[in-house]
Amino acid sequence: MTSAVDLFEAELRLCGVHEGETVAVLSQTERQRAYARDFLAAAQRLGALSYEVGLPADNEAGGLDYVGVNPLAGNQAAIEALKQADLMVDLVFLLFSVEQQEIQESGTRILLCIESLDVLGRLLPTPELRERVECAAEVYEAAEVLRFTNAHGTDVTYQLGAYPVMTEYGYTDEPGRWDHWPSGFLFSGGRDDGVDGRVVIAPGDIVYPFNRYVQSPVELTVESGRIVDIRGGLDADLMADYMAGFDDEKAYGISHIGWGLNERCRWSALATDPQSIGMEGRAFYGNVLFSTGPNQELGGSNDTACHFDIPMRNCTLYLDDEPIVVDGDVVPEEMRPRSSF
Amino acid sequence: MTSAVDLFEAELRLCGVHEGETVAVLSQTERQRAYARDFLAAAQRLGALSYEVGLPADNEAGGLDYVGVNPLAGNQAAIEALKQADLMVDLVFLLFSVEQQEIQESGTRILLCIESLDVLGRLLPTPELRERVECAAEVYEAAEVLRFTNAHGTDVTYQLGAYPVMTEYGYTDEPGRWDHWPSGFLFSGGRDDGVDGRVVIAPGDIVYPFNRYVQSPVELTVESGRIVDIRGGLDADLMADYMAGFDDEKAYGISHIGWGLNERCRWSALATDPQSIGMEGRAFYGNVLFSTGPNQELGGSNDTACHFDIPMRNCTLYLDDEPIVVDGDVVPEEMRPRSSF
Amino acid sequence: MTSAVDLFEAELRLCGVHEGETVAVLSQTERQRAYARDFLAAAQRLGALSYEVGLPADNEAGGLDYVGVNPLAGNQAAIEALKQADLMVDLVFLLFSVEQQEIQESGTRILLCIESLDVLGRLLPTPELRERVECAAEVYEAAEVLRFTNAHGTDVTYQLGAYPVMTEYGYTDEPGRWDHWPSGFLFSGGRDDGVDGRVVIAPGDIVYPFNRYVQSPVELTVESGRIVDIRGGLDADLMADYMAGFDDEKAYGISHIGWGLNERCRWSALATDPQSIGMEGRAFYGNVLFSTGPNQELGGSNDTACHFDIPMRNCTLYLDDEPIVVDGDVVPEEMRPRSSF
Amino acid sequence: MTSAVDLFEAELRLCGVHEGETVAVLSQTERQRAYARDFLAAAQRLGALSYEVGLPADNEAGGLDYVGVNPLAGNQAAIEALKQADLMVDLVFLLFSVEQQEIQESGTRILLCIESLDVLGRLLPTPELRERVECAAEVYEAAEVLRFTNAHGTDVTYQLGAYPVMTEYGYTDEPGRWDHWPSGFLFSGGRDDGVDGRVVIAPGDIVYPFNRYVQSPVELTVESGRIVDIRGGLDADLMADYMAGFDDEKAYGISHIGWGLNERCRWSALATDPQSIGMEGRAFYGNVLFSTGPNQELGGSNDTACHFDIPMRNCTLYLDDEPIVVDGDVVPEEMRPRSSF
Amino acid sequence: MTSAVDLFEAELRLCGVHEGETVAVLSQTERQRAYARDFLAAAQRLGALSYEVGLPADNEAGGLDYVGVNPLAGNQAAIEALKQADLMVDLVFLLFSVEQQEIQESGTRILLCIESLDVLGRLLPTPELRERVECAAEVYEAAEVLRFTNAHGTDVTYQLGAYPVMTEYGYTDEPGRWDHWPSGFLFSGGRDDGVDGRVVIAPGDIVYPFNRYVQSPVELTVESGRIVDIRGGLDADLMADYMAGFDDEKAYGISHIGWGLNERCRWSALATDPQSIGMEGRAFYGNVLFSTGPNQELGGSNDTACHFDIPMRNCTLYLDDEPIVVDGDVVPEEMRPRSSF
Amino acid sequence: MTSAVDLFEAELRLCGVHEGETVAVLSQTERQRAYARDFLAAAQRLGALSYEVGLPADNEAGGLDYVGVNPLAGNQAAIEALKQADLMVDLVFLLFSVEQQEIQESGTRILLCIESLDVLGRLLPTPELRERVECAAEVYEAAEVLRFTNAHGTDVTYQLGAYPVMTEYGYTDEPGRWDHWPSGFLFSGGRDDGVDGRVVIAPGDIVYPFNRYVQSPVELTVESGRIVDIRGGLDADLMADYMAGFDDEKAYGISHIGWGLNERCRWSALATDPQSIGMEGRAFYGNVLFSTGPNQELGGSNDTACHFDIPMRNCTLYLDDEPIVVDGDVVPEEMRPRSSF
Repeated sequence: MTSAVDLFEAELRLCGVHEGETVAVLSQTERQRAYARDFLAAAQRLGALSYEVGLPADNEAGGLDYVGVNPLAGNQAAIEALKQADLMVDLVFLLFSVEQQEIQESGTRILLCIESLDVLGRLLPTPELRERVECAAEVYEAAEVLRFTNAHGTDVTYQLGAYPVMTEYGYTDEPGRWDHWPSGFLFSGGRDDGVDGRVVIAPGDIVYPFNRYVQSPVELTVESGRIVDIRGGLDADLMADYMAGFDDEKAYGISHIGWGLNERCRWSALATDPQSIGMEGRAFYGNVLFSTGPNQELGGSNDTACHFDIPMRNCTLYLDDEPIVVDGDVVPEEMRPRSSF
Repeated sequence: MTSAVDLFEAELRLCGVHEGETVAVLSQTERQRAYARDFLAAAQRLGALSYEVGLPADNEAGGLDYVGVNPLAGNQAAIEALKQADLMVDLVFLLFSVEQQEIQESGTRILLCIESLDVLGRLLPTPELRERVECAAEVYEAAEVLRFTNAHGTDVTYQLGAYPVMTEYGYTDEPGRWDHWPSGFLFSGGRDDGVDGRVVIAPGDIVYPFNRYVQSPVELTVESGRIVDIRGGLDADLMADYMAGFDDEKAYGISHIGWGLNERCRWSALATDPQSIGMEGRAFYGNVLFSTGPNQELGGSNDTACHFDIPMRNCTLYLDDEPIVVDGDVVPEEMRPRSSF
Repeated sequence: MTSAVDLFEAELRLCGVHEGETVAVLSQTERQRAYARDFLAAAQRLGALSYEVGLPADNEAGGLDYVGVNPLAGNQAAIEALKQADLMVDLVFLLFSVEQQEIQESGTRILLCIESLDVLGRLLPTPELRERVECAAEVYEAAEVLRFTNAHGTDVTYQLGAYPVMTEYGYTDEPGRWDHWPSGFLFSGGRDDGVDGRVVIAPGDIVYPFNRYVQSPVELTVESGRIVDIRGGLDADLMADYMAGFDDEKAYGISHIGWGLNERCRWSALATDPQSIGMEGRAFYGNVLFSTGPNQELGGSNDTACHFDIPMRNCTLYLDDEPIVVDGDVVPEEMRPRSSF
Repeated sequence: MTSAVDLFEAELRLCGVHEGETVAVLSQTERQRAYARDFLAAAQRLGALSYEVGLPADNEAGGLDYVGVNPLAGNQAAIEALKQADLMVDLVFLLFSVEQQEIQESGTRILLCIESLDVLGRLLPTPELRERVECAAEVYEAAEVLRFTNAHGTDVTYQLGAYPVMTEYGYTDEPGRWDHWPSGFLFSGGRDDGVDGRVVIAPGDIVYPFNRYVQSPVELTVESGRIVDIRGGLDADLMADYMAGFDDEKAYGISHIGWGLNERCRWSALATDPQSIGMEGRAFYGNVLFSTGPNQELGGSNDTACHFDIPMRNCTLYLDDEPIVVDGDVVPEEMRPRSSF
Repeated sequence: MTSAVDLFEAELRLCGVHEGETVAVLSQTERQRAYARDFLAAAQRLGALSYEVGLPADNEAGGLDYVGVNPLAGNQAAIEALKQADLMVDLVFLLFSVEQQEIQESGTRILLCIESLDVLGRLLPTPELRERVECAAEVYEAAEVLRFTNAHGTDVTYQLGAYPVMTEYGYTDEPGRWDHWPSGFLFSGGRDDGVDGRVVIAPGDIVYPFNRYVQSPVELTVESGRIVDIRGGLDADLMADYMAGFDDEKAYGISHIGWGLNERCRWSALATDPQSIGMEGRAFYGNVLFSTGPNQELGGSNDTACHFDIPMRNCTLYLDDEPIVVDGDVVPEEMRPRSSF
Repeated sequence: MTSAVDLFEAELRLCGVHEGETVAVLSQTERQRAYARDFLAAAQRLGALSYEVGLPADNEAGGLDYVGVNPLAGNQAAIEALKQADLMVDLVFLLFSVEQQEIQESGTRILLCIESLDVLGRLLPTPELRERVECAAEVYEAAEVLRFTNAHGTDVTYQLGAYPVMTEYGYTDEPGRWDHWPSGFLFSGGRDDGVDGRVVIAPGDIVYPFNRYVQSPVELTVESGRIVDIRGGLDADLMADYMAGFDDEKAYGISHIGWGLNERCRWSALATDPQSIGMEGRAFYGNVLFSTGPNQELGGSNDTACHFDIPMRNCTLYLDDEPIVVDGDVVPEEMRPRSSF
């Protein structure tokens, strides 16, 4: 049996935390403070120093559905306070913000941690997973074109090269690197005007943040990196209404593209845990993770608050015509789990 | 950034709370008590006096799904305690009860507040919204017949005149008036035997309290103000089984009818916040809000505990043959938002 | 009005707790401890002695989705501590474990209680319900073959006799007997290799632990007590993916079979309370409860952690060709509620 | 064993609370709210209706050391809210205020309850105690002069008649009557200018709110109802400095005078429970309770916030020359406990 | 830095807890439950199994001032539940009860732990302390007469032999042995009628449970094991009144006698921490700990609830005329700290 | 009425916090976190940015009785995190540490705040108090010798000049300046070897951290800045034993010397609030505050953890033979309150 402190200790150990390092934990709500207390204790067990930076509570900033806004904005002293640490555990969700970038650039590595203890414990990362994700990144970085298709009519092409390849394997031991516990996938983006084709989201594909399995196909027409048409039934209507609500042209941009490699994650997990943040759905083995909206984390300029992450099943993905995923299964041996599962 | 107290202060200001007034807050559960504490503090900031009236906790009375029953029933001294205030904030949900009516009749205005801070903050009301809702009410009050249709076969007629028109714009500064934060719609009812026709709930329409988008059409036949037939697939079965569970003929009565005017509310909000109370879904701009069951809040005699609120999309609604909503869009200029959105 | 202590007192009274008896309450999480405190108080009111046995918190053992594993495993002293009591209230969920069996064998009766206060209060059991469930059990015990069908193509046969018939009516006053508050059904199992045919889960049938109404038919082919084929759309995919995730041949075994008799439970309850444990859905009157996976509670050897409970509507169930349930209605007079409802 | 709810139920029963009555509970701090919750539950057990009136928290009003100020001041609606009840349980301490008087005058009886559960349970009142206190009050009411002495030089005379005799026996079942749980004594006051003599507080006498046994004699010279001189060592200095701190001539007035009759209270209790409110010290059998400062509770006009209660040991008290207490023992048979203790 | 779990782990390690053992923790109040949670976690770190036994809360049993009564009385099943463990941590304070004796006799060792974390951490025991206490016990066991004196007139003699010598060094690793964390002293008792002389408690000596430094001498005359006279000033009065309050002849019996050996404990600690339980005052190096009242822990028959522990300074204690403590300093080399302090 | 946030807002306003500044709050325990939350809210009201720095909880560092040790020691990143702010509110008590000095030297001003809300509210500082304290500091800075006496035999001389004069008036608006809310006094120190004479602590003088009025005179002989002899009764013994417990020669050094100027503070406050930190006792008008032990806050090298603060009554204090305080009353007009009190 394992307590929360035990679990966080295991994770910090993966993050390379050791005696003499300092861990800062960023929190805001009471629930986050409970996690923070246990992360401080876990750091102490490893001989590391630690402190929490707590932000004033409010009801406007930084809900999970509204990416791009964050409660650190403008609070330069708090940002400096976080840059003092070797590792910062982000319980608040700074994702995609310039504030997070500034902290990373100071050399502080950042671990995002917002899932439930149950999910964190079940999906504690491993070095083996990291190795496979990094192998995949090497292949991805060498490619110039990504294309993916599915049996429902998807056929879309991304011109690569403008943006780096990002890995997420669930921990971080390199200065300035960000990761999210749990994960197990990688992604990059097409050139801003270099994505064209059709994406047909099929029944069973998941739309985040709706945390919903699509019931009927949704057909997106993509031209020069923008969604220009959305067709389908109720699911299409929901996506269109949600996007319209932001009143922001950038909501229709295409964001990152990649695939999942974590064989311990299940596509069906959403059915038993509909309120999770959904990292399990984003990372399940063989999914193609198609995303819309902001691309700041890649270094891009789209900073819209409207973001969809859509893990798609049974797709085929090519890098420079080399098949990487075929009908939802991963092809290259070095990206596959070491043992059958 | 805004704290809960800041938010409640802004709302109480809209409610006209000022130095020398007294605000009472009605609570029952621990969660409600946290809100109550912050409302008391907000009242103090405005120079108003305040007190909380806490009811004994129990597990029988007043869940949100069971309208018409409330924990004040029979507790005359507590009712009197609430009548002492100029404004009562209802955190418990007294809606549709004779107890609430008695408090209103004493001149105490009542603000219902049961949504999450996130929803409350996002949908803080404005005087501009109030103005448009009141304009709409004037038009509604002058009408004798309401009829609404949709492309799925809805065509139903309400004989008006028996009941008043009620507005909900999210705050209340008139003695004895009740409102619900947030909202943004209006409604009245047909004569008790004066509703006839067919209502076809279409895919995507929302059924509360199921907090569910209908997947397949549900056809209701309405005769003389009563539902006499329910047809369709799974959604129809769910509605029929739910209604049958109350073992109450009054469950099949037709309740209030009206339309939404709040352009900041989104139909798709239920997809990202499935556990909210659903005011956003009831108030979104251009929906026709069709309801069944109790009509006490209109002064009617139907006091069944079985209540459906069904915001319907893309309907056309006529008052005395004048189109007010056409295919889900509001026609009269004075009911439309001042600026494009 | 009724407090939690009042409610628990009523339940313990049904369980025959009286002066001189001792009640132990098993807990692990903080939420369970609140229930425990109130159960201790309720026992005191009945003149009974009481104590709580609290297990160390952790994030690995005994989530509701993973049956068969439990936090008592290996903790023999804690097991002995529980065997000292006349009645043990299980707030943790030991279901299907050898540890629970050992406690029952010592003569301690066990009441499982994990639903919300709202559900517990609404569905407090009655002796009348018990009587009807026991009548049904007598009939079931005498039968050699069970067969059930539905209009979607289900036709499956269970060879009975290998396993006992178990009743669940919501309380327990017999030494060593286990029950679950609330319930209201009965079940047994076919011989390990004695179940054959086809089960077609129809739209509207519920799949637990997905807490989901099936949207499209799922066809299961059963041979010699094992599922050998799963066909259908999204729902079938979800079930197949979930089962595959356990990487366990025993996940495909057929488990218990029975029918519901509680007329106060509604099939539609899941629509208004999607996060309940689902006893209302399992016990509604006239459902056939089809289950897969572990059968330890019947004394069988299948101990897989993968378990589906699937209450099916509108089925017809025969015992030795005698119709017991016909199109979702219960036939034998002695199993029907005393008064119309 | 007895829970807090059991204890409060016993007390409310003594207060004559019954089905059909309403109990209001006045609270302000979180600690008081825990008591309030249990009083509401206790009232429910007796079939009474109940509600809590919670006041906004603040850090200025109504600490126990500053009598006469209270958080109800100016909050007329809250006062009216409390007047609706048959019994009000005061957890906040309104003692000596005009607000309390107004509530009493409406017929609402008031029970003050601010001690710890331990003290409340140990000193739950009895009808036998009430009877003896009421016997004593009859004798007291008939007297014209009170004089008390002790071996350290005390000899002081009170001209009676201007003020009523008040009883405190720990519960209240008469309309408009106030009492304090626990207690067990009675008191009246001398005429405003009708107290003269010398009071010598002896080592071992208790000074509240110092919660301190006097170490060295303190000699007070009293002329025409005012303290005109204070002599002695450290204890005298402390009293003089404390009184000077109020900068209020009325601080030097003489307040109520009476004697204790509760044989279950111990003089030495302060030694083991130095932080209690001190009702045990005020009520112990045979003490003469000498007080200074405000006399509003008697109907007088002294409303100073500076109040000393000084239970004195081994005194002799005469009413019209009739010895009532002699050397700390009570003389009249009807005031003595029924059985030896 | 050290967390509560770290501290408890260190203590359990001293208690010899190891993989395969089971630790039970007895609790009752919420505050105790916080300790319990951390003890369970500490046990897990050592590979031990663990569980908590929680008793129903009440307001009557087992306050610290009322020894001899405990909430386990009559609850045989709970007693059995505790006997299952190898070590029981007692957070409730069972001291002197037959229930505790029964648990010890089953072989379960018991650690009492009721001080604050601050005291526990500061006075974590050591094997060195144990060794010295055990050396002292050997000497004590061999003696037939104990006599102690002080400069204020104390001269009292205990006839030894009737009772065993008990050690308290703050942890326990022997089956069935009880200890109290922290401590550091030893004691035995005189024969029931074998204590005679005079004890003069001097200014500065501490009287527990008054948690008070005596201000003026208290002279106790002891005849045949009973206090027959108490003389002195305020302190004597307090002791006499307290004892009289129990209305129990056994309150006047002489209980255990011994001396303190813990050089890390300070006599002056009570001045800075007046609300501690007082183990520091009982264990300080060179004090003679004189006690009255119950002697059940020695196996005697005095079970009064009235208990004084009185650590006396500057005494001289002889065993068979051999000086062990002289003027508050310990003489035998083997009982003195290894290094100067 | 005033909430905690109101109170903190008033204090931060005195501290000159304004829009664009940043306030950091240092906390460690749960109780401190409640204060921290309210300070963050108060800062927001003033338009300032804010964040909390939370340290890991432990049971070793920084209790109030052990000055000189603090939980920031060695945690350089946390120190840097605090240096980012314009004002740091210290809820933990860093007093006398090099860590605090480093933070001050960065320009961050520090406000210590550890008293109860009741004390904080009653003794909210004023600019008038600040002015008088600063006037006094000017006089003090100009002096070369300080001598103070009392009627009990005190006559001691401090050679000034080695250390600065420090003011404490309860708020801080100058970069790098530290203050403590509440206060109202000033102090400096004699040269390390430049204090000689006799200090006789008189009955009624207060010894912190004993929080105790001295009962009998304590005579300290001071030679060359060190206490070389302690005589007297119980109080002297307590001081001597406490000092010996630190096993540290520096415990006997003489620390700061000064006088109190806050006329709203009462010497008798300790009698009604024995558990306060004691700022009221340290600051009362006309006391001479004599201290022993560490002098780091003056820039000295004595860093012992043994510290006494001893406010003495009725003393006479001279600066270069000019009487500043005479028999406990302040002489110079500019140090006296503006109006009589």
